[in-house]
Amino acid sequence: MTNTPIGLDGIRALCAALLPGDDAAEAAIAARQAQLTKPAGSLGRLETLVGWLGRWQGREIPRLDTVAVLVFAGNHGVVARGVSPFPQAVTAQMVENFARGGAAINQLAAVAGATLRVVPLELDRPTADLCTGPAMTEAEFMAAFNAGHDAVAPELDLLCLGEMGIGNTTAGAALAAALFGADGAASLGAFWAGRGTGIDDAGLRRKREAIDAAIAFHGAALGDPLEAIRRLGGREMAAILGATLAARRHRVPVLLDGFVCTAAAAPLARLAKGGLDHALIAHASAEHGHKALAGRLGMVPLLDLGLRLGEASGAALAVPILRAALACHAGMATFAEAGVAGRDA
Amino acid sequence: MTNTPIGLDGIRALCAALLPGDDAAEAAIAARQAQLTKPAGSLGRLETLVGWLGRWQGREIPRLDTVAVLVFAGNHGVVARGVSPFPQAVTAQMVENFARGGAAINQLAAVAGATLRVVPLELDRPTADLCTGPAMTEAEFMAAFNAGHDAVAPELDLLCLGEMGIGNTTAGAALAAALFGADGAASLGAFWAGRGTGIDDAGLRRKREAIDAAIAFHGAALGDPLEAIRRLGGREMAAILGATLAARRHRVPVLLDGFVCTAAAAPLARLAKGGLDHALIAHASAEHGHKALAGRLGMVPLLDLGLRLGEASGAALAVPILRAALACHAGMATFAEAGVAGRDA
Repeated sequence: MTNTPIGLDGIRALCAALLPGDDAAEAAIAARQAQLTKPAGSLGRLETLVGWLGRWQGREIPRLDTVAVLVFAGNHGVVARGVSPFPQAVTAQMVENFARGGAAINQLAAVAGATLRVVPLELDRPTADLCTGPAMTEAEFMAAFNAGHDAVAPELDLLCLGEMGIGNTTAGAALAAALFGADGAASLGAFWAGRGTGIDDAGLRRKREAIDAAIAFHGAALGDPLEAIRRLGGREMAAILGATLAARRHRVPVLLDGFVCTAAAAPLARLAKGGLDHALIAHASAEHGHKALAGRLGMVPLLDLGLRLGEASGAALAVPILRAALACHAGMATFAEAGVAGRDA
Repeated sequence: MTNTPIGLDGIRALCAALLPGDDAAEAAIAARQAQLTKPAGSLGRLETLVGWLGRWQGREIPRLDTVAVLVFAGNHGVVARGVSPFPQAVTAQMVENFARGGAAINQLAAVAGATLRVVPLELDRPTADLCTGPAMTEAEFMAAFNAGHDAVAPELDLLCLGEMGIGNTTAGAALAAALFGADGAASLGAFWAGRGTGIDDAGLRRKREAIDAAIAFHGAALGDPLEAIRRLGGREMAAILGATLAARRHRVPVLLDGFVCTAAAAPLARLAKGGLDHALIAHASAEHGHKALAGRLGMVPLLDLGLRLGEASGAALAVPILRAALACHAGMATFAEAGVAGRDA
């Protein structure tokens, strides 16, 4: 890992030279799958998940020995517009709760056999109001991006990403709107805004208005995906983008969490063809907009259990599915080893 | 557990007096969920899963200390009609593979933290051809039912059920057709038959014809759900029915696996209102007909990852989801404990 912080040009340079997947590893895994004692393809997505792990780890025998959950936290100036039912102080209070082990992600990371690290990003300095100016200066954006980038240990076998930030579903929806539009819907805000932690109808109207106002204010500058996340996102989102790019550099497959996390990583898919191929969406959030966002990214979430919490909860929840896939691949007998007759025998 | 084998009348008597769920336990769980440090409802189905576990265990604090996977195996006379690409000998060969630890379910049970027991049921005596007579005599059916019933240890916290039996997707489809019809489709066989382990087009036609022939042969006798499974099912399916009923008696929640397993348990839903309320479908099989069957039972599978293997593979795969749900319920702090502000604070 470089000790020199990455700048905007550095991100673009990295995106122009992304590591490709390991075709040979994926092919070797598929060849073994075909010999295991089961009808061809009958383990469904468990089979392709092992291939995906191997492709992006660059290993014919993938591993899940070191799995990490990284949760980034940030605060948002747009909260002053009444877009969340929870006060901004909850972001820091939840960071304390993470530290004491009392949040959902503490329990889910333990079940996943993963380490958990929470990275609060200047919680006493919320972003600026995205409706009336860029949420972050370039320096602020790059500091948060580098914090995320540098938080990824190169030796990881799998990285789960998540976020905490009161107000950040507004930022996430604005970013999704900027990156993907709304296929002719009357209002970008109406298309992408959801209820987040549970805003009421009046709050949802304010949220939609804030998104539409932000898109109108920033205008053509949003055509650049990095400008879009700098102007509309938050520090935790910049950090997720940095961590997702670092993971690609270090051959670490990534599980993305819900709506905000996916939106934060989405600029990579716009900056480079296949830029998110080393990432999966772990869970289809109940937050409005996440399934639409997944569809625009061409990604099919692994789980759909109605969660809408963030905190990397959906990402951690999917880790045992990957462990199960890998256990089948590594532990099953072949038809020849087991003396089981093949089809049409 | 009674030492006297249950008869057909005994099944009907048990179904007329099923244990109800524990409303108080479920309510206590919901009350605690409302105090945990997360927006209300934001853990989605993880919240209701804990309530379901508590309701059917009869415990305000559910447990998952002892989890068992039971796989029943049987052979089917209908195989002679060319409905499977695999020879009948594979059933016994796979039972050997289970015993040596080489099958998918061995790996998946280990990941689930579950014990695995495989119960082969007279593999050298396949059922009769369901197209030309009852698959099982009453004595054969009840012996298999009792084998399943008696295989359930009363102290279990969770039971995963599954099957192995070359040809049994034909039997499962015939049973589903008998229990639920086909909403005006031209042919019951066309509606319910799928490719099982991977039959080709010609085999699929033979499978559809076998199902239609069986339904026509048995006629009005199929109006009784127990007659339907005796005449169309297999020993492994009778055992699954027995195990599912035993689990209800012992307050053991059940995870059903794929198409054949769900079809085998389905008579309980027809014999008693709420007869399958203590069971969930763990995974929506890629086998044609499973989603339709789940819909007719009013059940929403937990996972949908394209598996179509049987062996309780989908059931075992879902166990970590339940463990995650329970870990959140047991381990999370309340808003008061954590000093986190509630909504609209």
